[in-house]
Parts: sequence; C-alpha cells; structure tokens
Amino acid sequence: MLDRSNDTSLSALLQRRVPGYTLEAAFYTSDEIFAADMEAIFEKHWLFVGVEPDVPEPGDVMTVEIGTNSVLILRDDDMQIRAYHNVCRHRGARLVLEEKATVGNLVCRYHSWTYNLDGDLIHAEHMGEGFDRSCHGLKPVHVRSLEGLIFICLAEDPPEDFDEMARVMGPYIAPHNLRDTKVAYQHDLIEPGNWKLTMENNRECYHCGANHPELTVPLFAYGFGFAPEELDEVERQNAERYGCMVTDSHSAWEAQGIPSRCQEHLDDMVTGYRTERLPLDGAGESHTLDTKAASRKRLGTLPSDKMGALHFWTQPNSWHHFMGDHAVTFSVIPIDANHSLLRTKWLVHKDAVEGVDYDLENLIGVWMATNQQDSDLVGYCQKGARSSAYQPGPYSPHTEMLVEKFCNWYIKRMRAHVQPGRSADAA
Amino acid sequence: MLDRSNDTSLSALLQRRVPGYTLEAAFYTSDEIFAADMEAIFEKHWLFVGVEPDVPEPGDVMTVEIGTNSVLILRDDDMQIRAYHNVCRHRGARLVLEEKATVGNLVCRYHSWTYNLDGDLIHAEHMGEGFDRSCHGLKPVHVRSLEGLIFICLAEDPPEDFDEMARVMGPYIAPHNLRDTKVAYQHDLIEPGNWKLTMENNRECYHCGANHPELTVPLFAYGFGFAPEELDEVERQNAERYGCMVTDSHSAWEAQGIPSRCQEHLDDMVTGYRTERLPLDGAGESHTLDTKAASRKRLGTLPSDKMGALHFWTQPNSWHHFMGDHAVTFSVIPIDANHSLLRTKWLVHKDAVEGVDYDLENLIGVWMATNQQDSDLVGYCQKGARSSAYQPGPYSPHTEMLVEKFCNWYIKRMRAHVQPGRSADAA
Amino acid sequence: MLDRSNDTSLSALLQRRVPGYTLEAAFYTSDEIFAADMEAIFEKHWLFVGVEPDVPEPGDVMTVEIGTNSVLILRDDDMQIRAYHNVCRHRGARLVLEEKATVGNLVCRYHSWTYNLDGDLIHAEHMGEGFDRSCHGLKPVHVRSLEGLIFICLAEDPPEDFDEMARVMGPYIAPHNLRDTKVAYQHDLIEPGNWKLTMENNRECYHCGANHPELTVPLFAYGFGFAPEELDEVERQNAERYGCMVTDSHSAWEAQGIPSRCQEHLDDMVTGYRTERLPLDGAGESHTLDTKAASRKRLGTLPSDKMGALHFWTQPNSWHHFMGDHAVTFSVIPIDANHSLLRTKWLVHKDAVEGVDYDLENLIGVWMATNQQDSDLVGYCQKGARSSAYQPGPYSPHTEMLVEKFCNWYIKRMRAHVQPGRSADAA
Repeated sequence: MLDRSNDTSLSALLQRRVPGYTLEAAFYTSDEIFAADMEAIFEKHWLFVGVEPDVPEPGDVMTVEIGTNSVLILRDDDMQIRAYHNVCRHRGARLVLEEKATVGNLVCRYHSWTYNLDGDLIHAEHMGEGFDRSCHGLKPVHVRSLEGLIFICLAEDPPEDFDEMARVMGPYIAPHNLRDTKVAYQHDLIEPGNWKLTMENNRECYHCGANHPELTVPLFAYGFGFAPEELDEVERQNAERYGCMVTDSHSAWEAQGIPSRCQEHLDDMVTGYRTERLPLDGAGESHTLDTKAASRKRLGTLPSDKMGALHFWTQPNSWHHFMGDHAVTFSVIPIDANHSLLRTKWLVHKDAVEGVDYDLENLIGVWMATNQQDSDLVGYCQKGARSSAYQPGPYSPHTEMLVEKFCNWYIKRMRAHVQPGRSADAA
Repeated sequence: MLDRSNDTSLSALLQRRVPGYTLEAAFYTSDEIFAADMEAIFEKHWLFVGVEPDVPEPGDVMTVEIGTNSVLILRDDDMQIRAYHNVCRHRGARLVLEEKATVGNLVCRYHSWTYNLDGDLIHAEHMGEGFDRSCHGLKPVHVRSLEGLIFICLAEDPPEDFDEMARVMGPYIAPHNLRDTKVAYQHDLIEPGNWKLTMENNRECYHCGANHPELTVPLFAYGFGFAPEELDEVERQNAERYGCMVTDSHSAWEAQGIPSRCQEHLDDMVTGYRTERLPLDGAGESHTLDTKAASRKRLGTLPSDKMGALHFWTQPNSWHHFMGDHAVTFSVIPIDANHSLLRTKWLVHKDAVEGVDYDLENLIGVWMATNQQDSDLVGYCQKGARSSAYQPGPYSPHTEMLVEKFCNWYIKRMRAHVQPGRSADAA
Repeated sequence: MLDRSNDTSLSALLQRRVPGYTLEAAFYTSDEIFAADMEAIFEKHWLFVGVEPDVPEPGDVMTVEIGTNSVLILRDDDMQIRAYHNVCRHRGARLVLEEKATVGNLVCRYHSWTYNLDGDLIHAEHMGEGFDRSCHGLKPVHVRSLEGLIFICLAEDPPEDFDEMARVMGPYIAPHNLRDTKVAYQHDLIEPGNWKLTMENNRECYHCGANHPELTVPLFAYGFGFAPEELDEVERQNAERYGCMVTDSHSAWEAQGIPSRCQEHLDDMVTGYRTERLPLDGAGESHTLDTKAASRKRLGTLPSDKMGALHFWTQPNSWHHFMGDHAVTFSVIPIDANHSLLRTKWLVHKDAVEGVDYDLENLIGVWMATNQQDSDLVGYCQKGARSSAYQPGPYSPHTEMLVEKFCNWYIKRMRAHVQPGRSADAA
C-alpha cells in the first residue's frame, strides 16, 4: 500500500512518490510547496507566455505576471523581441501597468526616470554628479521565440535544451507561420485549483467523453488511448482502423513536407515537450463545432485545409493546437496553491477580417466551453485534495500515462532542485 | 492575578488556564490553535450535522463540510443512514457538489467512476486488468442517529460514550418523533467569531435581557440563573415560585411518561451534553412571539401543546429546542479562527402545510432575530480578543457557570489531545 | 555594490542597510517585518490619531483602530481628553462600535457592564459577593494634545521627548488655534502599499511636478530641493530669488510673533519631527486651486490671510499643513504589509458655515486629488518591491534627503527594538 508517513517535508514527499499514482495532497495544497514550485519550476524553466503577434510593431509592449514578478516583453526598433523586469531601478515602481501598451521609451510615472527599448537608463533628474546611469539599466530577462511562440526564463542560466526542442519543433510549427497571424481573441480564466491539476487535466482525454461535448466532435474516440481488453469486436476493428489512419495521415503529410509524427520528451528533458499531428473526424478541417475551418484565410504555407491538428505541449506550462485555419495557445500561470491563470489566445491569419473571414463565436466556441468544463473539474479535485480522506489514486495505464509523465517530470525537476548535487537526469 | 506569561505554546496555554475566567486570547485568535481545534475536537468527537428528515428517501444525499473535509450523508436502499468521505478514489474529485441531491449511484463527474450507495466501486473504465475495484470503495465515516438527530465522527475510533448519551437522551427526544418531521426552513449564518465564542454565547442567558427581545417573551427571568443577593423581597418570592413551578412541571410531565428533569454531563463525559425540559411563560406553548404553537400539527406522541421546551446541548457543537409543535436544531461548524457557520433548522410535522398549518415567518421569527443578535455579540468579542488589552475576565458564578463548563470540557479535551498518555477524565 | 546576502532575518536586514538607498524589499513586503513594525513602531511611539474638534463636548467619543487594538478617545466631564482600550473587562467585547459617538457612560452591549468616563466600572450584575469592581476598570492609553492635535501611545512608558517636541512646536501651531476649529470633512483612503512607502512618498516632492497638477499650483518649484548643477542661468537666479523670499518671509512672520523657521529633528529624536512655514505662490493664501483662501473665517490669531503654509511632520505617521483659513491633517495607520489607511481631516473655523463661508469642493479638492495620485504611486512601488528583480535604488541627494531621514529614523528605531541594550541615539 502507499506510504502514509507523516513526514510532510518536501524532500520526504519527493522521495516517497509512488509511480502510477496521483501526487500526495500536499503537492496540490501546501503553501510551502507552492513557494517551492515557483522557485524551482517557474523561476528556473522556460515558460510559454505569448506570441509574437502580441507585440507586432516596434514599441509594442506586453506585460506578463509570473508570481510576484512582472516582465515586460517588447519589440525593439530592430524588430527584435526583448524582455525586461518591469521594475524601475530608482524606487522600484512598476513601469508599465497595462497588459498591452505602445511606447517610445519606458518612462516611470513616479520620478520620470526614462529607459529606451534597449533597457538603458537615458534620463534621471536630481541624482547628483556622481550618479552613473549605465549602472541603472533595466534588468533583462531571457526570451526566445520558437517560430513566433514566446518563451521566457527568469533564471540567470536558463536550461540549454531549449535549443534542442526548437531544432525539432521549428519545422513542425513553421508551416503555420505564426508571425503572419494576429490574436483574434484572448481569454483569461482563473481556475480554482493548483497549476499541476490544470496541467494533469490537459494531459489526458479519459475525461473528454463525459465532459466535453463541444471538443469531442472532431476528435476520434481512440485518439488519446483506450483499454484494449474492454473493446468488443466492432470497437477493436475501429481502433485498428484509426491506428492505420493516423499512420497514413502522417505519411501523406510528411510527403508534403509537413512534419507530423509523434515526438515525445515529456519526462526525459529539462525542457520537456511532446508533439503530434492528429487527423480530425468529420469534415476534418478544424477544432470547431462543425469541424470546418473557422477562418477562410489559411495559415502559412499549408497545402490544404485538412491538415488535422498539430498538438504541441511543453513542460511546465503550455499546450497548443495548430490547425489549417487557426491556432490556439494555452499558458498556465500559478496564482497561489489553490488558483491558476489559464490564458488562451486564438490566432488567425493577420489579414483575416472578423465578420468577413471568420465568425468570432464559431472560432472560440469550442475552447471557451472546454476551458470552463476543465476548470470545474480542476476545482472538484482541488477541493478533494484538501480532504483528510484523499490519498493518491491510480492512473489508468492506458489513458493517463501522459499525466504520469507530467508528474515524473515535475518530481524529477523538484528533486534536482532539492538535491542540486544530483543531475536532473539521474534523479 | 492572572499569569501573563509570554509562552504562547498550546501546552503552556492549556496548563495555565485559570478556572472561572474566559480563555486567553490565543484560543480565540490563533491560526495554530484553530488547526489544533480542528484536529483535536472536530476530527475526534461526535458532531451534530443534521436530521434524518434531511434525507428522507433512499438515494437522498446531504453533504456537510467540516473544515477541509466533505462528508456525504445518505439514506441507502434499506433506509439506513450511511456516511462517506466525499472524495473519489481515482483522482480525488469531489463526488457530490450540492448540499442536497438524490442519486441512484454516486458517479464522479471526472472519469465516471461509479459507487453504489454502500460505497462500493462498481464501475471504472480503462484501469487495466490488474486493477482491483474492491480496494477502491468510498471511505466510510462513522454516523449515528439519536432519535433522528444525525451525528458523525471523523475519527477512526469514535468516543464510546455516545451510547451512554443516547441511552439517556433517547426517551427525552423520542416523544417528539423527529423522524416524522420535515425541515420547514434552514438558515446558514456566518458568525464573525471563533466557534468557541459562539458556543459560549449559547451557554448563558445573562445577555438575553439586554439583547433578545423576541427570545425572552416566553422565557422566565429566573430560568437561567440569578444572583440571590441582588434580589429584593418581591423578586426573591418570584424566584422561589419559579423554582416550584419547574419542579411541579417536571413531576407532571414525567407522570405522563415525558422525561423532563435536568441531566447534566457537560464536562464529565467525552461526549458532553445537558438536557432539561423547562416550562414556558404566557400561553406556554412554543418559542414564538405570542408563545402560542406556530404549527397546528402537534409533534409525535406528545399529550398536550403545553410541553414547555426541551433543551438539549451537546459538546462541542450543538443545541436544540423541542417544543410541542416544532423543533429547532443548531449546528456550529468552524470556518477559520475568526469565523463560524451556524446552521439552524426548523422542523415541523411532516404533514404540516406551510400557509395552512403554519406561517413560516411566525415559525422562524424568534430565532432568525436571536441568531443575528448573538452573531453581533460574538463579533464584538472576537474583535476584543484581538486587542493587546484583552485579558481573561471573570465569569459570573450565578449565570455563567455553564460557559465555564464548556471551557472546562474544551480544556480537558485539548489536554487529552496534547498529552494522550493521561486519560481524559484525569486531565 | 549592495550586499545581496540571503540572510533575511530582521537583524541582518537592519545591520546591512545601505545609507542613501531605498530599503530592501522585505521591509515593504514581509508579514514578519510588518508584525515587528507594529510592535516596535506603532505600539511604542507617539501616533497622531485625530484632533480635539473630533470630540468637542463632554461624552463625545472617537474610536481609533491601530492594528488589532481599538482605542477610545473621549472628552470627560472636566473637558479633559482621555483614552482607553475599547475592550470590556468581562468577556472582552468591544464597547464602542462606531467611529464617533456621544455617551453618558460606556455600556457594554453584551452584559451591560457599565464604565464612567473616568474608566471606572460602576455597574456589573450577577458577579457574586466577592467581586471587586475596582479591579475591573478600563485600561488607560497614554494621550496628549499638542495644541489640539491628539497623539496616543500604546506603550506603558511612552517616549519622553514628546515634551520637547511640544515645547518647540506649540508656538508654531498655537496661532492657528485648532481648538476653535471643526472637522469640515474627513476622508479615509486605503493605499495599496506598505505604510513606509506612504511615508516615503510624503517626504519628497521630486515626484510632484509629474504627478500633482492640483497640488503644485501654489508651490514654488524650488521649495523642496533641486540639483544645482542641472539649472541654467535663469533657473539659478530664480532659485536664488526663492531662497531670499523664504528668508524674508520667515523674518516678517516671526516679527509678527508667528514662528516660521525650519526645525528639523527627523532622525535625531525618538519622537522625530520637522516643521517650516513656507510662502505660497500666486495669491499666496492657501492650498487651493486658485491659491486663495477656501474659507472666509480666518483661523486663530493670525494677523493676515497670507501666512503661507506651516508644514509639520511627525515620525512615524503624520503630516499637517496649516494655512490662514484652514488646516489639513494626515494620519497613516498600517493595515497589513501591503495596505495602509490614510486618514485626512480638513479643519475650518468652528463658526464657518458650509456653502456660506466655504465651498466644500474647493476646500478639499487639492488633497482629494493629490492623495489618490500618491496612493497610485505607492501601489506601483509596492508591486515592484515584490519582484525578484527589485533591489534598493539610490535616493536623490538633492530632493530625497528627507526620505532618507525617514528611513534613518525607522532603521534606528528598529535597531533599538531588536537590540534594546543599545540606546536609540547610539544605534
């Protein structure tokens, strides 16, 4: 049976984790472990926070809040994406208050200290003759764009294997050409649960049939796992046919130069990720209620509307769906042990016109509904985790193995944090 | 004078408690002591949480939240009352979200794991061939019905002296036949104070004259104690007459087979309680503004409308008033150190029809007003307890001795928790 | 560079404070340091909390909340100002709930214990024959009136140098005769920042030009410091002229018996303070949008409407502006590490009639706008202080030296608290 020891130190909890089971309750409810998560995971790893179309023009700024940190992401005059801590070097005031703004320079409201888009302090009155402006520039934050997906890392030394992920994933994403899209809609949802429950919820579709009537319309029933021993003869044949269809689709798409096969490094890289392009049922065009393209303007260099859906997941905090006509990106930011922000962005071709080329309700309907359904489920689990009767329960070996891999990754990264002497891979 | 030591450990506070005085401030304000209260008192003792008429039919379910625990109380197909932790054994999701529901089986919304009313897991997909459903039933919670009053205990080994209380109290309550009543109204009030202040407020009527104009209409002024030396000759004679009336009433009621004499074990049992049937002034029928019965349908087997009011208090969290025409039950559930839930239920005969047999406003008016008045008083004390100037004050030896007994019981139970080697009675 | 040690103990933080820089983040954000601030600063020093016109008549009571303490300030039958803890000595209930009340005696709502205005318990029923009322009077709080400004101190032994401040400041304030004023308006603003940020914001006008269009109308640009090396020739001459004007004004006012010269003891006294009477620009009469007197009834014994503005600051929690026609007092009370109450009172002659002698909007307009602007700035800094990128920034040697003195005073007082063996002055 499971170890029910009373030692609730993080080290003890990490050490006694039982593979194949949900985490112990403290991982979802403890304020101390939440603080450790922020320090070990969210201040040390690459986080997906937005897309290049969030800041399309020079001087465009987006602010992102990661715990108590606020980060400015901007496009400079050379069209480069830059990121800085959103903190004036004088009295510490926040520089940009809005989520989006367009600026010439970054001017602090308090005493008018002024920084250019390179982060240099270019103006500060009254500071006396010995004051050295060059020591008081904005503090930079590491930032990378993976074909238009913006990742930041708050650590001084970010994980180096981002490059490896980018090398593999670039060709998958490039055909959708995100840099030529615009954000048609953004929705922020505060989920009533720990960020890990939000991620776990995303990593399986065992719950989809009973909870997501809108999402499941174009999803094949066998696309996210099944228990072979529970299938009758007809179901068994259907499952086989589905398997062949996926293989055939991958071959066909890759013959067109569109990488599609599964790549999975969810728990064997510091910057864990997974991707696969899956065919869609019905009209097979998009994640919409009628499975047809929501937007008339096809993305990028795709040869057809029927490109299925490219799934891309990253550890610790994102997932993405890229279709022929639009893309949806999801970013999870912890708020406290019991609450998480899920930020969803719907991208369409930058020339697509709302009401002409796409209907907004049709574009966002599936995921607006699905997100709320998932948020409710996450909330039920968060409440349950706080019960004294909660104990780790078993994951399905057929349909929850990717949840298990998320937990593996998390436990491994936390062990590396607690015992920095051991390498992450050995842990 | 009182010991004003700076040692604020629970052990030190328990050890230096001064009899006859209110508790030190930390007992009302400290988050740590609140956590200890939840563990030592509310997870270890019998709690009153509702009545059988809350779940009259098979499949009726009521959820009760005790701290971070949620408990399902249901009536099974054999009409038995059962209680389970409201936590799915798979991913820990809460099973029933509503306070009241009617179900065939208990189905988790997340992945459709299904339990029957006996708590057995009867359905779970995708779990693989080695999965043993019989190891994943709902976790039971101890539950007892005392003539229709439902008590639960979250401990593995509940206090055994519940049986003794039930043996004594059964004959007092049985004539009111609560199983043939219905819940005419329920009211939840969040009081702005520690649960012990709510209980202390209930354990004396020293404050009634100045604060409860509605409640005191049918109460005799001498019914809850007085200072003999403060009475003038007329008052002294009235007090004597009141004493004789109580004795005569008890004799008359008991001759009719209705137990009425005081039984008091507030601080000498683990499951502490007190009861007494007291005559009412005026028309003498009920706790209403005009002291007449609020409902025309008399409860149970009572021989008359003029049965006074049977008071029944339990430690740690309830009190009840049973009259000829209706009953009122009160359950206190701590929320945090500074807030408590007071849940009040008004019961009338199950065949009584609102608007025909009883007027709802008349039925609930006295206690709706009284609860709010008490809540305000509790809030004033909670604020005062947070002041650095607060120090334990003296209880009246004439009218606050039952508050003292509540505190005695609490201190004794906490000492037994902190020093489990000593027996509760010796403590 | 600055010491970025990880030792976040209060002692370590106090010890490594770098003069000339803002405080480390923990001083603004830590709950532990907030608790230490309440204990070391707000429970030990003289706090400005109101004015005699708040309680003009015998039996008038004002309640003031300092952290978890509530203090009654009242005028007794001999017209003396008295202060008591607002806690009944019986069950600890708060006695007066309203911010202002008028009473004969102080009667607890709970059990009618009654105290006279001298704090004596004069009535308590049911307490038995051995009960000694004289041991259960209200607990007094130290209170002083400095020419109508009411200060309290929660400590048993208040700082003795209040007398020294009162000796110096009395003659400055007396001519405005606050005892003959009334509170025309009071405004409570919850600022989203630590109390020290609110105080720091008040201690400089470097930020005024960019943020306070209403306030700066009658303020001379050079009145709160400037960097000489940044002035061009014209500005240099203006600054010199301003300096002469201040000197001349002081001489003229003092020749009329109105003390005006700067007195500064912000960081060399336990009861730190600063004062100076400064001329006003424009019509030179008052802190109003048109710089003219807002009220027609001149205060006290002032010889003219053109008395400039007498500034009076006290450590830790107040500032005041006294003009010929009205006065404004500001009191800062911490709420938690991230929030502070700013209470502002506008005083006019007691015989001034609203709508006749003064227009309320005109009277309060400048500071209603300015307070909100400052509150926003404080909030930006509070957010910034929570960022991992925050590090102490440099104060301007020309225009933030009085912020530095506030910090000096605070650090010195905290060091004296942490190391009580060392004298405050030596610390």
